[in-house]
Amino acid sequence: MQFSLGCELPYTVADQATLILNIEAARSGRQTILSEELDTGSVTPERMEDGVTGNRFLRLHLPAGEHVIRYAATVEVAPVKLDASLVRETPVAELPIAVMPFINPSRYCLSDELARFANREFGGLEPGHDRVTAICNWINERVDYERGTSDTTTTAVDTFAMRAGVCRDFSHLGITLCRALGIPARFVSSYAYGLEPPDFHAIFEAWLDGQWYLFDATRQAQLDGIVRIGSGRDAADAAFASHFGSIMSKPMRVWMDRTDVGGEREPTIEAVSTVAA
Amino acid sequence: MQFSLGCELPYTVADQATLILNIEAARSGRQTILSEELDTGSVTPERMEDGVTGNRFLRLHLPAGEHVIRYAATVEVAPVKLDASLVRETPVAELPIAVMPFINPSRYCLSDELARFANREFGGLEPGHDRVTAICNWINERVDYERGTSDTTTTAVDTFAMRAGVCRDFSHLGITLCRALGIPARFVSSYAYGLEPPDFHAIFEAWLDGQWYLFDATRQAQLDGIVRIGSGRDAADAAFASHFGSIMSKPMRVWMDRTDVGGEREPTIEAVSTVAA
Amino acid sequence: MQFSLGCELPYTVADQATLILNIEAARSGRQTILSEELDTGSVTPERMEDGVTGNRFLRLHLPAGEHVIRYAATVEVAPVKLDASLVRETPVAELPIAVMPFINPSRYCLSDELARFANREFGGLEPGHDRVTAICNWINERVDYERGTSDTTTTAVDTFAMRAGVCRDFSHLGITLCRALGIPARFVSSYAYGLEPPDFHAIFEAWLDGQWYLFDATRQAQLDGIVRIGSGRDAADAAFASHFGSIMSKPMRVWMDRTDVGGEREPTIEAVSTVAA
Amino acid sequence: MQFSLGCELPYTVADQATLILNIEAARSGRQTILSEELDTGSVTPERMEDGVTGNRFLRLHLPAGEHVIRYAATVEVAPVKLDASLVRETPVAELPIAVMPFINPSRYCLSDELARFANREFGGLEPGHDRVTAICNWINERVDYERGTSDTTTTAVDTFAMRAGVCRDFSHLGITLCRALGIPARFVSSYAYGLEPPDFHAIFEAWLDGQWYLFDATRQAQLDGIVRIGSGRDAADAAFASHFGSIMSKPMRVWMDRTDVGGEREPTIEAVSTVAA
Repeated sequence: MQFSLGCELPYTVADQATLILNIEAARSGRQTILSEELDTGSVTPERMEDGVTGNRFLRLHLPAGEHVIRYAATVEVAPVKLDASLVRETPVAELPIAVMPFINPSRYCLSDELARFANREFGGLEPGHDRVTAICNWINERVDYERGTSDTTTTAVDTFAMRAGVCRDFSHLGITLCRALGIPARFVSSYAYGLEPPDFHAIFEAWLDGQWYLFDATRQAQLDGIVRIGSGRDAADAAFASHFGSIMSKPMRVWMDRTDVGGEREPTIEAVSTVAA
Repeated sequence: MQFSLGCELPYTVADQATLILNIEAARSGRQTILSEELDTGSVTPERMEDGVTGNRFLRLHLPAGEHVIRYAATVEVAPVKLDASLVRETPVAELPIAVMPFINPSRYCLSDELARFANREFGGLEPGHDRVTAICNWINERVDYERGTSDTTTTAVDTFAMRAGVCRDFSHLGITLCRALGIPARFVSSYAYGLEPPDFHAIFEAWLDGQWYLFDATRQAQLDGIVRIGSGRDAADAAFASHFGSIMSKPMRVWMDRTDVGGEREPTIEAVSTVAA
Repeated sequence: MQFSLGCELPYTVADQATLILNIEAARSGRQTILSEELDTGSVTPERMEDGVTGNRFLRLHLPAGEHVIRYAATVEVAPVKLDASLVRETPVAELPIAVMPFINPSRYCLSDELARFANREFGGLEPGHDRVTAICNWINERVDYERGTSDTTTTAVDTFAMRAGVCRDFSHLGITLCRALGIPARFVSSYAYGLEPPDFHAIFEAWLDGQWYLFDATRQAQLDGIVRIGSGRDAADAAFASHFGSIMSKPMRVWMDRTDVGGEREPTIEAVSTVAA
Repeated sequence: MQFSLGCELPYTVADQATLILNIEAARSGRQTILSEELDTGSVTPERMEDGVTGNRFLRLHLPAGEHVIRYAATVEVAPVKLDASLVRETPVAELPIAVMPFINPSRYCLSDELARFANREFGGLEPGHDRVTAICNWINERVDYERGTSDTTTTAVDTFAMRAGVCRDFSHLGITLCRALGIPARFVSSYAYGLEPPDFHAIFEAWLDGQWYLFDATRQAQLDGIVRIGSGRDAADAAFASHFGSIMSKPMRVWMDRTDVGGEREPTIEAVSTVAA
């Protein structure tokens, strides 16, 4: 499928500031950027592409004044879809070293603290993609999606206890429960087709059977309508914007439209992967 | 039933210290102290009895040196037992003012944070003694009783997430889930017949239908073998010993034996109350 | 001094709800209610006055619909003012039993966790009213007063670490540091003259030399312009409104004007107490 | 300097287990492994060396029974030492992408929560190696080194509030305060000469002026007597042992002796770096 997407981020800088953005569609074998345009006004951005994650960072040195950063792209996504029931887990004993950090607890994903719960609740299920889907179902049925119930300090343990949050919190809890079972998992920021209202979306990936598979515990986006931006251990690594200095953000705008002709999509039932292993 | 019980608490004081103890059997219409003996060595204790809770505090001013505090008593308990299915809850709208503080969150019982969970899980059950029993069952089935998994800073939210604790933590979680539903609940410290190894025991009370009923989420003690010591909002109010100054406790000893003749007790199925309303 | 004060609280009730309010000026030997008026519309409030704290609770059973609760009063305050340097602390060894719960940690005041800090920072100061003033100065100089930096789950330990909060957080931190030193302290909700914008105000009291003395770590109100409403272990006990059922609050209004003729007040330098011991 | 060091780790495996160890001296341009020996009994270890951190992991699949893992090495360390006053900080605006994750908060290093404090306390100091030394001094003077005061869930915010911990906690707090100021910092596990009793030691590195510099907020080890093992965002990444399965550790032994001839060392006053940039 093909999407036209983008965002517009206005800022006011009092003195001078450094802004690090992670808003551009990731380059990946399974999503092709047909065209893209970045407008940073009179400021020349510095580009940094992380070789490991593929995250594309922009660093901008902004002088005092009003600034609007605008990004627009047309992206073709062609995720791999597999029969979920055939996707197995890889035992800890066989994980490659590159994915091992993703079983460690992180800022928002205190997998050590939820280990007993995860093992009692999901430890008896057959290892595999379906077990991670069971985790997403558990979250979706028990956590209220409600704006204003969490903030930037909210951990997955808070969400587990308080049973409310937004997409970021749902992802953190999903990641945490996976790691507690020994399944590597990471945070993914994205554009998501069909999200109402349009916004950046947080989902997560679990490493199963040799590659990363997408999951969305909020069930708000279809996984084949995802355009990835960044990934990391949790939201601390994959913020779309980080500010340093006297800078204030103003209300932003995000959009995403489908630009190819296509019939109604069926609900995804397959395992979906959008990055090469 | 009639019990012989007591404790022996050794201390080393480096300089001088104040010790506040809450180890004596409470005076209550439903437990009668047949005899008791307190040995504080050469130190004369100051007695303070809390008119509201009935807690009996001893305050001791200890000079440098070795001290052993010894308490022994014979106590007759005659709890009220009622058919649990007949014990109803009192709606918040009708609670007397004296019990209202026991629906507020406290140091270890963050009932505000577990409100959504409590209402999703237990909100649909018929209000009454059986609903509090359902809470105790839930805790007993999902939390591991394991020494060393908690400490003096552990809250009920920690226990809810980490799924392990000791009697104090089980009580805190029971209290918390009750309060989250609008049921007044408080912490009770006690001597408990049959506990292995013998120790002080923490249980809790919920205020239902006009009086306080005992509950033990650990299921380690039978409720008609409880001799109450103190009560309060949580363990912060009902410590058996509080130290001020350069004082160190050494291993203590607690005992409790049945002293009347009696057949085997049946497992308690009734609602049990050991204090007058 | 004499003040005209009050509040107006609008609510929307979807089905039916119980509302518990603590908005009326407390009755105390040192503040005299010259006149007061409560308007609860067609609903008859139930009155509950706590014998220990003097808190005056109103319980209202509200049917579906729009409701406005309005309270207005004229209050004369005549606080006791003493030379602060003469006000001593009472050692734990001599505290009366009624104030002992106020050295225990509570929901928002985790005095056990800040004990080492408090003793390192304030342990060497001369015990007395001036030491509590030193605590207030410490807070005032190091914590940013900033709306939106805390929420209803924020504890004094959070505020200690994050260094930002509102009056409620400043009070909790003051109380916590006092208790960590063995000084009984409690939360006080109030009307405060000169507060901009007008609002309910949270301050705290420390028990020194036989009575409760007022402190305001925010320095936003003068202590002789305080009309007390309620008090308790922390904000969990002294909420101005607690809701049960399908009820939503709308923006409220609080006011307070001086109604006697008076010259400019001097900044308070004395120890101020507004309740009888 | 030249050291003979090693460790002996005994385990009991009930059924079967996977053990991941990170106990071997790191390979680095500034520490040379003259000889080393690993004894894993009848089990063949799988080796994994992280290209980014240089961490050397051993993965062992242990059958039921008793196991002893023994590692011994002779290592020559030749750290770069520079005049600390000449080592500057690199502004966030100029950090290379590879070190940028080390300004993000992590499991134990909640740098977002201590940002106001760090900027108030250290924000006015001249950026550079001396500022990180000021952070270490601050920690060393205000936090008690005391076993038993922390556990595996203790974060730097806990340590900041509770003012007690062990080497791991001191490192976490140092890292956290650095990141809060925009200074990349990471956790380092090591063998440390002169530690009493001998044990693994946790220290940290800050990225200054183009390379990683060592710091030890505990002041228990001299920085030129450190042999690095692993590094990572915090202790979650650099555990010396991670267990999966039914395995229990027994008391371990760690040793480190100086094996070259040398006079008394002077206290280190220079900036010390043991890894190539």
